[in-house]
Amino acid sequence: MNDYMEYLGMLAGFCTTVAFVPQLVKVVKTRAAQDISTSMYLIFIIGLILWIIYGVYRASLPIIIANSCTLLFASAILFVKFLIDKSSS
Amino acid sequence: MNDYMEYLGMLAGFCTTVAFVPQLVKVVKTRAAQDISTSMYLIFIIGLILWIIYGVYRASLPIIIANSCTLLFASAILFVKFLIDKSSS
Repeated sequence: MNDYMEYLGMLAGFCTTVAFVPQLVKVVKTRAAQDISTSMYLIFIIGLILWIIYGVYRASLPIIIANSCTLLFASAILFVKFLIDKSSS
Repeated sequence: MNDYMEYLGMLAGFCTTVAFVPQLVKVVKTRAAQDISTSMYLIFIIGLILWIIYGVYRASLPIIIANSCTLLFASAILFVKFLIDKSSS
């Protein structure tokens, strides 16, 4: 049972990480990000960085890997939004 | 040092949870959610539900509480987006 639950935890981490890919694809494709909250992604990114520091301290590879991937996607979304907002202003 | 790191973990969980509040406020205020990816929130919500199941199995209150709050905000964003998309179609 224990193994199944570890796989469940990994699947949970995988979902909450790759969830950001469709949003990244959408903003890149549509070049529209006005409805996306900048403060959401700024606070979220700070949280992800704190999770990575916590993961390093706990020597927990799943926490480090999942949050590093999410950090990559969330930062890319924020960067693309910044470019779109800049070009439309 | 150990205590500090536990507080850091809680702060990380707090940030990645409340980060969704500004996005919820923005969609409610602007009544605009077209740029927000539905599939992102669907996959994210599935991930959050899996995290809650994992947290219950691990008897980890922080995992249960943080992911339950995020589930609440993320579901609210998806619900408001659904209402907006329905009213504009």
